[in-house]
Amino acid sequence: MAFSERVTRLKSSLIREILAAAQRPEIMSFAGGLPATEMLPKVEWADMPVGMGQYGMSEGEPELREALAAEARALGVPCTASQVLIVSGSQQTLDLAAKLYIDKGTKILLEAPTYLAALQIFQLFGADCLTVSLQAEGPDLVALRVNLELHKPAFAYLIPTFQNPSAVRYSEAARDAVAALLDEFGVTLIEDEPYRELTFDGASATPIVSRLKKASWIYTGTVSKTLLPGLRVGYLIASPDLFPHLLRLKQSADLHTNRICQWQALQWVGTEHYREHVLELRDFYRVRRDAMQAQLETHFSDIAEWNAPQGGLFFWLTLKHKLDTRTLLDAALAEHVAFMPGEPFFANPDANPGYLRLNFSHIGPERLGEGLQRLANVIRQALAAKAA
Amino acid sequence: MAFSERVTRLKSSLIREILAAAQRPEIMSFAGGLPATEMLPKVEWADMPVGMGQYGMSEGEPELREALAAEARALGVPCTASQVLIVSGSQQTLDLAAKLYIDKGTKILLEAPTYLAALQIFQLFGADCLTVSLQAEGPDLVALRVNLELHKPAFAYLIPTFQNPSAVRYSEAARDAVAALLDEFGVTLIEDEPYRELTFDGASATPIVSRLKKASWIYTGTVSKTLLPGLRVGYLIASPDLFPHLLRLKQSADLHTNRICQWQALQWVGTEHYREHVLELRDFYRVRRDAMQAQLETHFSDIAEWNAPQGGLFFWLTLKHKLDTRTLLDAALAEHVAFMPGEPFFANPDANPGYLRLNFSHIGPERLGEGLQRLANVIRQALAAKAA
Repeated sequence: MAFSERVTRLKSSLIREILAAAQRPEIMSFAGGLPATEMLPKVEWADMPVGMGQYGMSEGEPELREALAAEARALGVPCTASQVLIVSGSQQTLDLAAKLYIDKGTKILLEAPTYLAALQIFQLFGADCLTVSLQAEGPDLVALRVNLELHKPAFAYLIPTFQNPSAVRYSEAARDAVAALLDEFGVTLIEDEPYRELTFDGASATPIVSRLKKASWIYTGTVSKTLLPGLRVGYLIASPDLFPHLLRLKQSADLHTNRICQWQALQWVGTEHYREHVLELRDFYRVRRDAMQAQLETHFSDIAEWNAPQGGLFFWLTLKHKLDTRTLLDAALAEHVAFMPGEPFFANPDANPGYLRLNFSHIGPERLGEGLQRLANVIRQALAAKAA
Repeated sequence: MAFSERVTRLKSSLIREILAAAQRPEIMSFAGGLPATEMLPKVEWADMPVGMGQYGMSEGEPELREALAAEARALGVPCTASQVLIVSGSQQTLDLAAKLYIDKGTKILLEAPTYLAALQIFQLFGADCLTVSLQAEGPDLVALRVNLELHKPAFAYLIPTFQNPSAVRYSEAARDAVAALLDEFGVTLIEDEPYRELTFDGASATPIVSRLKKASWIYTGTVSKTLLPGLRVGYLIASPDLFPHLLRLKQSADLHTNRICQWQALQWVGTEHYREHVLELRDFYRVRRDAMQAQLETHFSDIAEWNAPQGGLFFWLTLKHKLDTRTLLDAALAEHVAFMPGEPFFANPDANPGYLRLNFSHIGPERLGEGLQRLANVIRQALAAKAA
């Protein structure tokens, strides 16, 4: 079999296996990042023009691009609709970025931890992943400077607002500092913001791309976390030097994003009823966040540490005694609980044991305590077995 | 700017420019491959479950996979639903295949001419494109054997049924011979069949993948040509050795295909009303094919040769006196006619002047003659200028 060289890096996905197992009805899953099904809005299709069934433009629907550009400008991102590319979900932006930048051995800069599906596609293309550790208010700035200066990575991929998995939100000062460093070394920023609107304390900070003065940038967003993930409608906004390349890569990837779901997204983006829906989502998820926090305090305070997330969909737990959390999966599933081990969120999984990502959006508060108790017991037993 | 090496092969797309120009209302366009807008079926959305808005499986919707597998088995393709992967339009299958097989310099085998967007993505990944010329009943079998034996390409990409652009349909004998050769040399077949159902003479021939005994294969289809292209729902069916890799590549490309449009496709695939719709489409396009044939005889018989297509959406014209048809575009657009030059359908465009691809599905018979007359005059003037 004569596959490409990159296929040697196409790993069996632990996540896929967990999510497949988590489909079983008896399993309580903290593993995925699913929006609460009861909060999926009812959408109407009756007014969609028949013409939406025809082939469309690779750039995306003009009205949707206009609406997204207006929203981005309101956030402080300087752009016009001509810089907006509609993609088939935010994951596709990562695929296009990988194609644009990554050859075998290309150095790129990521947070540690970072979004595991970004790692997956960047490593598939052969990236050499440099990382800077995340702290409570943003990345280690000293390490960031050293990496930028020493290695001149092709781009920095950052998730500054309610990061998946760590839930970290960069402070204003960290955002300014990161922007200044990227400008200083002329390194492109890919800023991924799927969770920006899911904020629980109302605080906000303008995107880092809006603070850049010179560096090229790609800002990436989606309607998956606040409208419907099943639409697979995301978008990127790029500095004008990058846009034409990304557009051609989009065209060669899948011609264009499906127009049916673009039309549906357009019924929401920038409207009052979308704003109201997002406010309801925040209230709903804040209650679930609080319930999870309370149950974690009951069941996990002796074995783990964490910060209560101010947004997003996840708690990120640090075990007080390190162990490879991937080894806990079988025992957890035997107890009918699924969770996401922390190791796959690091470029070097084996060097980073002892973290768990727990989703709080999907499971109702009434069932939560029981599942977390079972999971905590699995961990305690593994720690005891290790100590024995 | 530190782009990847492959970006040097990311060409400005002539086609994009033509299609953009063809959007102008005064332009009569024979350039694209658009289904007739008046034949786009009215689709209903009222019964779609709200749950279709949630994240889905990378493989695609189970019921749709079952329905497509049943259709494929009826065609003679030996498969189960476990081999069906729903993709975001057939173009994505080419992207996944490129990732699976192509490193810089990887030899692959294509027809000459071949589908230009396949060339685009395969060349982007660095393929070394070997070609065998298409004849009326299939590829040059002697050249095919020589290429397989000498170069052992990673795969052969073929469009055996109403090829885009040439409209060639392989004979039964050619299909058998190609399958035997691929088996003999153990070369994977990618068989692309977007146009199979758009047949005007009712003749049919089982896919080549159904004739293979040993070689690996990917069969790729779509609902774009017979239902709605705007859905961006295509599918691939792969031999079991290839499927797991393609699935992982799909996941890293865009997680999964949008479920809304998968649900819509499921309302049609395998149903009586879809069969009736396809019969109506065939009748409709046959009338347009006949009208085009008549007008071509009037306006082009002195300057070009062609075979009337028995299916698909295109006439493929060979000019009696060769000239680079790309040079005709500006003059044609000035005369408010768009067409597709033949050169970009060849791995080596400059070595293959003198072909035009004309779409017959999109323009009504009543307007056709005028546009073809103008186009023929543009060609005659260019030939006269060249002779002068």
